[in-house]
Amino acid sequence: MLQRPQTGIFLTFEGIDGSGKSTQARALAASLLAQGHDVVLTREPGGSTGAEAIRRLLVEGAADRWSPETEILLFNAARRDHMEKTVLPALARGAIVISDRFADSTRVYQGAARASLRPLVDSLHDMVIGIDPDLTFIIDMDARAALARGLARKSGEDRFEDMGAVFQEALRAGFLDLAHMAPDRVLLIDGARDMGAVSADVLAATRTFMSARR
Amino acid sequence: MLQRPQTGIFLTFEGIDGSGKSTQARALAASLLAQGHDVVLTREPGGSTGAEAIRRLLVEGAADRWSPETEILLFNAARRDHMEKTVLPALARGAIVISDRFADSTRVYQGAARASLRPLVDSLHDMVIGIDPDLTFIIDMDARAALARGLARKSGEDRFEDMGAVFQEALRAGFLDLAHMAPDRVLLIDGARDMGAVSADVLAATRTFMSARR
Repeated sequence: MLQRPQTGIFLTFEGIDGSGKSTQARALAASLLAQGHDVVLTREPGGSTGAEAIRRLLVEGAADRWSPETEILLFNAARRDHMEKTVLPALARGAIVISDRFADSTRVYQGAARASLRPLVDSLHDMVIGIDPDLTFIIDMDARAALARGLARKSGEDRFEDMGAVFQEALRAGFLDLAHMAPDRVLLIDGARDMGAVSADVLAATRTFMSARR
Repeated sequence: MLQRPQTGIFLTFEGIDGSGKSTQARALAASLLAQGHDVVLTREPGGSTGAEAIRRLLVEGAADRWSPETEILLFNAARRDHMEKTVLPALARGAIVISDRFADSTRVYQGAARASLRPLVDSLHDMVIGIDPDLTFIIDMDARAALARGLARKSGEDRFEDMGAVFQEALRAGFLDLAHMAPDRVLLIDGARDMGAVSADVLAATRTFMSARR
């Protein structure tokens, strides 16, 4: 298991594709940078050279390219590399790390694919990662509206989005469950409003957390 | 965990780089094919489209590209895909599957890198693979002699071989240990003799196993 440094702040953004979480992660990073903080904006899968190579295996190709079990192993391999090479060194020097997706995505995506996979997801996380974020923002919005936004992008990384609206609905339900199960760490943010209103909520919550930490 | 079909025979070849195990795997496959058997010759890491893509991440690049933990996850992801797409379907139709390397390589390589990794290796194998070969041939030979052969090849896949002679000695010791620990499944073959003598031993042992099975 990895050791979390005592320093630094680890924030993550989660939500279904098209919810605006990447935009919000960037906006928060920009605000904190402007305030003079040491900020590392990163993403999963990816966020380190090795993990980005694994990302390409995960996000490109046919939706049934990997079984759920193989996919879980690849996500954990990418996450381990990301933690070792990017997240933990940044936390160790006292930085604020903001990750666009993290372990909650694996929990929710695999749970939506097949509920019986959850014990494997949890065991692997405990064995090779063992670290949760200090604060997680779930940017919540209607699955069909989010999907319309997501598909409009067509980034060439559409393997998960291609799984369709029913799957996105299941994902949204999974993220809402997670917010109820881990209320001390997870904050649910209404993502259906205009971007500035969402950003203001996120920034305010981050400031509250940082004040409480001090 | 995966379910092993009741049919088929699953044979693996193990040993340090340059021991001649790949040559011996090919020779056995050719003999059995010539006798009219349905034979699938495969290899790890790799042996399926997805696993071969993961193989490229594992065997190319600098020796310290991945931490041992990330490497174990990638090997298991590749193995899961290989089992699902290649090994299990072949066993299900009654074929003889011959794999150049399998889970024993992960056990021995990671044990040689750091003994404390063995519980992670074993837990992962139990959780996502859970199948051992019917018979495993360890082609044993002196590490320095084998290394000289291996390096002479320079295949562009030399990441593990680049780790040097001391590491290869540790690997050989690990394979010898394994032969002592699992004598019902693992056969130690003296690989320092000429190729034909080694092949004859391997073929004889395979025939004995197949007769006992019948």
